Amino acid sequence: MSKIATDSVGVVRPQSLHFDEPLELVSGKTIEQYEIVYETYGVLNAQADNAVLVCHALSTDHHAAGYHSEEDSKPGWWEICIGPGKPIDTNKFFVVSPSNLGHCSGSTGPQSIDPKTNKAYGPDFPIVTVIDWVNYQKRLADRLGIKQWAAVAGGSLGGMQALQWAVQFPDMLRQCVVIACAAKLSAQNIAFNAVARRAIMSDPDFHDGRYYDHATVPASGLKTARMLGHITYLSDDAMGDKFGRELKGEKLNYDYGIEFQVESYLRYQGESFVDRFDANTYLLMTKALDYFDLAGKEGGNLAAVFEKVKAKFFLASFATDWRFSPARSREIVSALTDAKRDVCYLEFASNHGHDAFLVKNDHYIDAFRAYMQNIEVSK
Amino acid sequence: MSKIATDSVGVVRPQSLHFDEPLELVSGKTIEQYEIVYETYGVLNAQADNAVLVCHALSTDHHAAGYHSEEDSKPGWWEICIGPGKPIDTNKFFVVSPSNLGHCSGSTGPQSIDPKTNKAYGPDFPIVTVIDWVNYQKRLADRLGIKQWAAVAGGSLGGMQALQWAVQFPDMLRQCVVIACAAKLSAQNIAFNAVARRAIMSDPDFHDGRYYDHATVPASGLKTARMLGHITYLSDDAMGDKFGRELKGEKLNYDYGIEFQVESYLRYQGESFVDRFDANTYLLMTKALDYFDLAGKEGGNLAAVFEKVKAKFFLASFATDWRFSPARSREIVSALTDAKRDVCYLEFASNHGHDAFLVKNDHYIDAFRAYMQNIEVSK
Repeated sequence: MSKIATDSVGVVRPQSLHFDEPLELVSGKTIEQYEIVYETYGVLNAQADNAVLVCHALSTDHHAAGYHSEEDSKPGWWEICIGPGKPIDTNKFFVVSPSNLGHCSGSTGPQSIDPKTNKAYGPDFPIVTVIDWVNYQKRLADRLGIKQWAAVAGGSLGGMQALQWAVQFPDMLRQCVVIACAAKLSAQNIAFNAVARRAIMSDPDFHDGRYYDHATVPASGLKTARMLGHITYLSDDAMGDKFGRELKGEKLNYDYGIEFQVESYLRYQGESFVDRFDANTYLLMTKALDYFDLAGKEGGNLAAVFEKVKAKFFLASFATDWRFSPARSREIVSALTDAKRDVCYLEFASNHGHDAFLVKNDHYIDAFRAYMQNIEVSK
Repeated sequence: MSKIATDSVGVVRPQSLHFDEPLELVSGKTIEQYEIVYETYGVLNAQADNAVLVCHALSTDHHAAGYHSEEDSKPGWWEICIGPGKPIDTNKFFVVSPSNLGHCSGSTGPQSIDPKTNKAYGPDFPIVTVIDWVNYQKRLADRLGIKQWAAVAGGSLGGMQALQWAVQFPDMLRQCVVIACAAKLSAQNIAFNAVARRAIMSDPDFHDGRYYDHATVPASGLKTARMLGHITYLSDDAMGDKFGRELKGEKLNYDYGIEFQVESYLRYQGESFVDRFDANTYLLMTKALDYFDLAGKEGGNLAAVFEKVKAKFFLASFATDWRFSPARSREIVSALTDAKRDVCYLEFASNHGHDAFLVKNDHYIDAFRAYMQNIEVSK
């Protein structure tokens, strides 16, 4: 008998679609052809008005819910929010969860073969932005016969894609769900990304991004980058509660080995990440974050940007998130209000920092579920 | 005519003393002999009761005030606080400012020759702790004929030394001045240090710390470490005000070069640091921070530790300091109050984050001056 919980979508299989139509990018470059790997959960109704697009964040991918086998112990990244009876209820909605262009989990990215050279793109893979991802996801919607999303939803970098959808294709979504997000990175956010990229790019195994040709990976640099990222995903309090100054061993050794549990934990996080993630993709994702600036073309005037959106908004933030603090969500809410848009905003108490959007919390889940239940779809 | 301001101590010369008596360290190791490089400002009075010990932080040294020549454009690190008429008034006090053991600016450290091998210590230089530094500074006091400091003062890691003095030699100081400090690092503080050390130690030019023998330095790793440190010294707001999302060039290039001013600034900070600082010392200083735990032996009970101190305390913190936030200072103040000690505590509005203790701010300077003016010394 399966050990998978009954409120899970269960065992799922990624799907793939090939696209031949060139995609012009913000950078001026073009991707001639590409694959989109995605998962779907639930059933598209006859009117095709119950589809929800789920957008992933920096280090996650198309596997948002369910398991890849009966034996798989690790569900998709948003298992707490997607499934029967969950906020994004798969008894009601048809969920589409693609991996973005540039990713390392199947969709075309730096590890893919460049048809021009018959070698992996590596550092020649063009920089992609949130605007490009929305165009890319739009083509997936077209192919799947979805003319309008019931909702586009995401947290962190995923929330940025949801925001961008509302601006870029205002008629193509009815709800925009934006969690633990910001309308642009702060200087501090950019600075952390710059240090993370340095760690990767200065690893001698990086070989200017052509490490695939050298049968190596910049594991050390990627590990450092991930450790740094991880500090910014957790709150100071959460780290304090979890580890404090607890020692790894029985006593201090007064050397340069690991002395404290928090060091050991971070090292583990870094190591397990290296096994599943590509360094060129990590660079690309941090750049997409840096470049995102929803009101950039409007001189920073977010309210002006929101004048043309049509979706209703649900925003949520978490008290101890210092990467994208509640204040950053309030900026968006304030601009939406100035533009007289329909917005529901909630701030949740949580000790989990930025990661809170991935962590079960009754207030968050219940409020998100209530919002999604009110969305009207055809039977 | 000199361009040096009249409220500066002017041109100063570092001095040096040799110590033959072995210094036993907390780690169980021993330094057989060592040099202490230090600067002094002002004049020791006949009763030797006007001496102030200034303790330096992670990346500073004995050069706390004045200039090294008439042409020198960069004063000591606490020029705003030390000089005639300044908070630590050199018309009244005799200031002693040593470089700590393990440092790279003259006092014995990893770059010094190990008499046992006739080669640089490098990674064989023992780990030093704040407790060791206080013992080391005590010997300097003995040699200079100072039986009791009018005050021991410092910010950040320097404040930790001041706190440790009050506990370790309660009869040897009348005032303890602790600015932008904490009684121990948080898990997050430790985590940032761990990532910084990783950046240095994984640099191929590090050679397990024996890079002096290879005629190289782990410049790239040290630069990354400093960039990371620098982010934690500034507030999110200060970085936002100073740089925001300002571009380095006229437009975005969509590549992995520097796009934003904040990246350029950090890179400059990293590069200039590499020119003046030794990587092994950086490792050592971050370890001293990690190991500091004022109430560690008392099971975290700070008030119990303060039962035996005799000094009066002046503590200050800065609103936007997230490295050692005001809450960390309040923990110390609260424990001092519980132990019925004499304490003056001030929290200052400042946009400068942790660096605020090095930045001129009238409220801070005036309050610090007022406190120091009330200290009684013989004529």
